[in-house]
Amino acid sequence: MSDITPLDKVGEFGLIRRIQETITLRQPSTTLGIGDDAAILTPAAQHDIVVSTDLLVEGVHFDLTFCPLKHVGYKAVAVNVSDIAAMNALPTQIVVGLAIGSRYSVEAIEELYEGMRMACEAYNVDLVGGDTSASRGGLTISITALGQVETGRAVRRSGAQPNDLICVTGDLGGAFLGLQVLEREKAAFLADPDMQPELANYTYVLQRQLRPEARMDVIHELRDLGLTPTSMIDISDGLASEILHICTASGTGARIFSENLPAANPMLEVANEFNLDPIMCMLNGGEDYELLFTLPLADHTKIKNHPDITILGHITEKSDGVNLITKAGQPVPITAQGFQHF
Amino acid sequence: MSDITPLDKVGEFGLIRRIQETITLRQPSTTLGIGDDAAILTPAAQHDIVVSTDLLVEGVHFDLTFCPLKHVGYKAVAVNVSDIAAMNALPTQIVVGLAIGSRYSVEAIEELYEGMRMACEAYNVDLVGGDTSASRGGLTISITALGQVETGRAVRRSGAQPNDLICVTGDLGGAFLGLQVLEREKAAFLADPDMQPELANYTYVLQRQLRPEARMDVIHELRDLGLTPTSMIDISDGLASEILHICTASGTGARIFSENLPAANPMLEVANEFNLDPIMCMLNGGEDYELLFTLPLADHTKIKNHPDITILGHITEKSDGVNLITKAGQPVPITAQGFQHF
Repeated sequence: MSDITPLDKVGEFGLIRRIQETITLRQPSTTLGIGDDAAILTPAAQHDIVVSTDLLVEGVHFDLTFCPLKHVGYKAVAVNVSDIAAMNALPTQIVVGLAIGSRYSVEAIEELYEGMRMACEAYNVDLVGGDTSASRGGLTISITALGQVETGRAVRRSGAQPNDLICVTGDLGGAFLGLQVLEREKAAFLADPDMQPELANYTYVLQRQLRPEARMDVIHELRDLGLTPTSMIDISDGLASEILHICTASGTGARIFSENLPAANPMLEVANEFNLDPIMCMLNGGEDYELLFTLPLADHTKIKNHPDITILGHITEKSDGVNLITKAGQPVPITAQGFQHF
Repeated sequence: MSDITPLDKVGEFGLIRRIQETITLRQPSTTLGIGDDAAILTPAAQHDIVVSTDLLVEGVHFDLTFCPLKHVGYKAVAVNVSDIAAMNALPTQIVVGLAIGSRYSVEAIEELYEGMRMACEAYNVDLVGGDTSASRGGLTISITALGQVETGRAVRRSGAQPNDLICVTGDLGGAFLGLQVLEREKAAFLADPDMQPELANYTYVLQRQLRPEARMDVIHELRDLGLTPTSMIDISDGLASEILHICTASGTGARIFSENLPAANPMLEVANEFNLDPIMCMLNGGEDYELLFTLPLADHTKIKNHPDITILGHITEKSDGVNLITKAGQPVPITAQGFQHF
């Protein structure tokens, strides 16, 4: 068959050559891309570089039973871009390391790269370097992303002040429920390989899980509005875990009002079907890759009617702790239930 | 026992915290290190950034039967720094991704980091970011290194010109023979677990294999001598493979004289013991991490008596091909026998 080429037929250099041919460079700061000992970047004057690295491991972060490699590639880039966004920076370049198990074909790896290529196009990022290796196990994807931000304008987790507004983009809990659907269908499939997975009714939550987007759109909008967050983080491990990171780094407390948590209807429907508390899903479900940030109270009028940004509550003195305020007005301490890989 | 702590006891955040506490930052360009969504770097004005990424995969690039984790950590950093050196840049920061199999303890990972910390100190590099994950297989280490070089002074593979001198640092073939010794001893150990490995007579070649150094010393010396190579590459896959990369990128041929190949006595002794041709070991043995570079013929007097740089031959027109010139004056075409992972 012409569409299943074993990796050892083209070798490491051959694979790199095949991939290199499909790469377009867009960034003015990319002076030299793939093909030398290192890429050469010429950053804009008066700009800082931000750099972040993430691993995606087969069987831990993704499961090929239900996740096409193209989606895995797209997501691998998107989650790294999300880290760059969370610094208030614009992504510019990525480098990619792949450890590839022996059951993968050249075509499978090209599909993975096709997803990465699509994400690079969507986020205006150049793929400028990489390394590939065999692996004794499954597929491990390592991506390091670089971005640029005007010197001194990077936003850290540590700048939140009491009375700052706590804001979040988009809606929460969807990616977590998408994962529940996939796991249920996988269990059904393993019990009966002839079964047809029932995925048509779950488009929204599946897309949230399989095809998350980094919120670069919001970074651009905040700039257009003249707003600079005092602190920011992206939601990879869940809102609870991330607000605790901000409060720990900033030396503050926080009040988040449960009735303000942004719920999408398809998320509520799936939570109901799975008998899961939607508040718990929004608070502790990870992988939504929305941005959580704080703004000075004075910016309230600029942000209050934004259709895609929700004000969850406000930062408090540290001594107040980090609390979820229930509908009845009761404070409940927030604790991290973030995903543990080990 | 107090010295074997399972990873799930401290978790991902706990492990990162433990490692973070041991990190020293040295580089003026490091504005923010580990602990946020991304590190923040402030490059020197009028400097380019170079960036390179490498994977080290257990069972492919290293074997824990005979390679202590501290050495693995040191080597993982050194080989990345070597790529930065090969661009004529100075290394500044690294980020580290680790996918960790379940049989690793916290102490094992701390030993790995201890090796990386030692290399960071040796090369004056800051560890500014990372990601850790469980893995279903063994250990995979992904390192991305960044460096800085005055704008426009990065050295590529593509700048060699006919008549340029072909130079190499140090000596060749040692790392390859170190691997042969380790593989022989491993086979003996697997056949008889009570056997004592015979390693005392092989210090030099073992050190070349287990504890390679990036030749940053030579980069600094070339700068002191006012020399800028026209092309450069580091020797990871073997001299033959690397000279072919330079000639392909530069559109040239090359003549390398076999009697000029730099041989260390301990390498010759081990080659003899293993009945291996030392020329083959120097030409095709990988992982020496020496620098291969070209210089204009006019620089000959500045370099000819350097104790640690050998002139191998010279660049020719492309039509002459890439040849090894034997002692008898016969040209033998050089072909890549570089290591293939797949």
